[in-house]
Amino acid sequence: MATAPGETILPPKKVYEAKVAQLRQELVQLQIDLLGSRTKIVLILAGVEGAGRGSALNTLMGWLDPRNVETISVGKPSDEERERPLMWRFWRSLPSNGRIGIFVDSWYTKTLRDEVRGPKDLSELSDELRRIRHFERLLADSDTLVIKIWFHLSKTEQGHRLTELQANPDTAWRVTKEQKLAHAVHDRWAKTAEHILAETDRPGAHWDVVDSVESKPRNLAFAQTIVSRFHAHHRRITRAQHSPPAKPQRIIALRPEGRQRLLELELDQKLSSKTYEEKREKWLGRLNRAVRKAAAKKKSIMFVFEGQDAAGKGGAIRRLTSAMDARDYRIIPVAKPNDEEKAHHYLWRFWRQLPRDGRVAIFDRSWYGRVLVERIEGFCHPREWKRAFAEINDFEEQLADHGTIVVKYWLQISKEEQLTRFRSREETPYKQHKINDEDWRNRGQWPAYETAVGDMLALTDSTFAPWNLIPANNKRFSRLDVLRKAAKSINAALKE
Amino acid sequence: MATAPGETILPPKKVYEAKVAQLRQELVQLQIDLLGSRTKIVLILAGVEGAGRGSALNTLMGWLDPRNVETISVGKPSDEERERPLMWRFWRSLPSNGRIGIFVDSWYTKTLRDEVRGPKDLSELSDELRRIRHFERLLADSDTLVIKIWFHLSKTEQGHRLTELQANPDTAWRVTKEQKLAHAVHDRWAKTAEHILAETDRPGAHWDVVDSVESKPRNLAFAQTIVSRFHAHHRRITRAQHSPPAKPQRIIALRPEGRQRLLELELDQKLSSKTYEEKREKWLGRLNRAVRKAAAKKKSIMFVFEGQDAAGKGGAIRRLTSAMDARDYRIIPVAKPNDEEKAHHYLWRFWRQLPRDGRVAIFDRSWYGRVLVERIEGFCHPREWKRAFAEINDFEEQLADHGTIVVKYWLQISKEEQLTRFRSREETPYKQHKINDEDWRNRGQWPAYETAVGDMLALTDSTFAPWNLIPANNKRFSRLDVLRKAAKSINAALKE
Repeated sequence: MATAPGETILPPKKVYEAKVAQLRQELVQLQIDLLGSRTKIVLILAGVEGAGRGSALNTLMGWLDPRNVETISVGKPSDEERERPLMWRFWRSLPSNGRIGIFVDSWYTKTLRDEVRGPKDLSELSDELRRIRHFERLLADSDTLVIKIWFHLSKTEQGHRLTELQANPDTAWRVTKEQKLAHAVHDRWAKTAEHILAETDRPGAHWDVVDSVESKPRNLAFAQTIVSRFHAHHRRITRAQHSPPAKPQRIIALRPEGRQRLLELELDQKLSSKTYEEKREKWLGRLNRAVRKAAAKKKSIMFVFEGQDAAGKGGAIRRLTSAMDARDYRIIPVAKPNDEEKAHHYLWRFWRQLPRDGRVAIFDRSWYGRVLVERIEGFCHPREWKRAFAEINDFEEQLADHGTIVVKYWLQISKEEQLTRFRSREETPYKQHKINDEDWRNRGQWPAYETAVGDMLALTDSTFAPWNLIPANNKRFSRLDVLRKAAKSINAALKE
Repeated sequence: MATAPGETILPPKKVYEAKVAQLRQELVQLQIDLLGSRTKIVLILAGVEGAGRGSALNTLMGWLDPRNVETISVGKPSDEERERPLMWRFWRSLPSNGRIGIFVDSWYTKTLRDEVRGPKDLSELSDELRRIRHFERLLADSDTLVIKIWFHLSKTEQGHRLTELQANPDTAWRVTKEQKLAHAVHDRWAKTAEHILAETDRPGAHWDVVDSVESKPRNLAFAQTIVSRFHAHHRRITRAQHSPPAKPQRIIALRPEGRQRLLELELDQKLSSKTYEEKREKWLGRLNRAVRKAAAKKKSIMFVFEGQDAAGKGGAIRRLTSAMDARDYRIIPVAKPNDEEKAHHYLWRFWRQLPRDGRVAIFDRSWYGRVLVERIEGFCHPREWKRAFAEINDFEEQLADHGTIVVKYWLQISKEEQLTRFRSREETPYKQHKINDEDWRNRGQWPAYETAVGDMLALTDSTFAPWNLIPANNKRFSRLDVLRKAAKSINAALKE
């Protein structure tokens, strides 16, 4: 090991020990700072087979206080994991505030392993890398520190390492067939790996390459990288926390045409009680068959209900569920997040609730709270709700890609109709619990909601998860419309 | 339908509708009361095949506000479920405060279904029933309202129902082979079912039998039972909540011999640095092999660390993990429960964390907090910590029955040694975060802890999960002792 001019010359072992002692101090301090902060670390380990990822990790774990660290090593997906979108298994393993999640296997593992077996279709690879970029961007945006370590080894060095391991009876078992194959195709594989690294090296999610020829310098560099990345991150978020908190701002439309669409809706639709009953039976039947068909095809369905207070979400949900077997659906009422949920990205609580294949989940309010109440009340920073549109589209695209059928409703009533319903709730004993001060306060924000809803409709009306606008002044019409659109959406999705 | 004298004679349809309207009002009120309370409902549906459990449930769901209700219908266990003790899948589905969990399938389902195929070994059945009684007792004790409905049908009525269903092309598919078999063996099955009902009809978990010949009276009786059971429960818990809260009491030993065992421990064991290093290597190697062998046999391991503040749990855990691959273990630091955890039974948060087969979980503090800090600080009622001993033994027995190896440690230091360590923590910059006012306050309770720990040692030292007492004044000795006992315990368990 070379020394800089002026440095005292110590035997290498002493130098190493001194450096380790220093690093351990810094790691302890890092963990204390982390616990006191509203941030977490996602540490991703990847690299060349044989570079000693596992052994570097074991060393690191010896230096850290292991109590707030979690190692995530996902093997073959479990059946519960296979029945959800690809990223579900990683979402469920994300660390909460104050903690470190070390992904020994990560969203890179499969991509890199598959490449050993044969070159991947380029457009498929580019899709995967786009997904990864989005996900890491989402983590970084929500103040998660993403540290990505690439353990590097040249082909020659890899060869030496494998020979070494095989020569020792105690370690020979660690050399797998896959590693031998990896060595054989190293050049081709390394080219793709380089491409992957370049395509996923982004602000907030940079790769750090750690040379892995010698284990001690490798371990030092590994830990040192974590410490440096954390310091930079900690300075940044500490500054951000000192900046003034977001204040409720005047709500200005991003996409006025969305609000226009809402205003043009004909809210007072007529429907006689007799016609309603006939048509209801017809659509209940169709919906029942559609849901059973989806279950038989192992497709999950997610219904999302949004609408003003008293727009009739509860009643519509009740009619919808009357077409289904109680064993097949779950209703998820969405209120304020609990403290575990608050320690995660706002989408985490919804990832948690994704139905298994063949099941139905009904969200009574949803992730759209981010761009509605949170935007209007200033519960989140403007940059947070602004980027939520893209995050939500990405989330719903992942659902659709997995095969989940997403049916979204916005139930719209007029301001006058809401007043009538509020009054009726106040006067009916068993409805009084459904109305409180918050409802009246929200009502005071009517124009702001029109704008926010308009933006939501314009910015998240995707082909894979379009909005269904329901005119809801007439309860019969609205409930029937919900049923009809449910059956049609599911049937359309099943035909694709 | 017969009418009581003096009752106005209405056509049966009107009578039914009036009763339904009344019941729906009562159910709405029930749900409002439930949401405002610190209780939950576990509703279990069971009964004779063909009695219309599913259809009664669908009707009930139409009457309830479905938003705080969850239907649990567990099919074949998933792999994640199979790799944990039997009851894990039910624990993970338990409702939290304010909610209703409807178990269409429950801990009775398998027992009853198996019986159709052939009579069960009697001692096996009696074991199962004992487990069920314990579990329901645990739920009832923690203010969960357990309602168990048995849908009854005689053999003749069952025959009619199945013939009816088969005659209609729309419902014929609902008659399964299993149902036909159930009908054929009805008499034998009904005898066992009667036995099961009698053996599991206990205070806090009574069975209500609902006659299911006609669907409308069945549905009314079903809903009516829920309302009545809830009213009685609500009166009871409201009374209980008005009674004065538990105050910290003087700590009196239940089992003085436990404390005696603690006091007799020789805390100051000597171990030279050289001997320590030699033996450490030896035991690390043995432990490493033992853990790998357990993983190969698909056995999970749970280490439980308890001990006074500064007794060296963290250091001991760190040495223990140095014998393992970071990918195989998880450390679970146990602090105050979060609000989701608080809305459940105190064991729920630990059930949640059970490792899958072949993995290792290390609990840094544990469920024993209930009989230590919670007992001493008066965080729970005396009857709560008193019954915790049996609940914990039952929990650990379930772990052992599943094949999990449970290794429990109590690390004991002297009061003087603790003082020395507290002082050293206060003086060492990177250790200061490890000491706070609470530690000093706990220290003031030293004799109380001795008594509580003694009771814990005496009352939870089972053959399937014995306590390892570690004299911990000497850190080297203590760490080595932890390693040695870990290796020995695992090897002993693997030999069984």
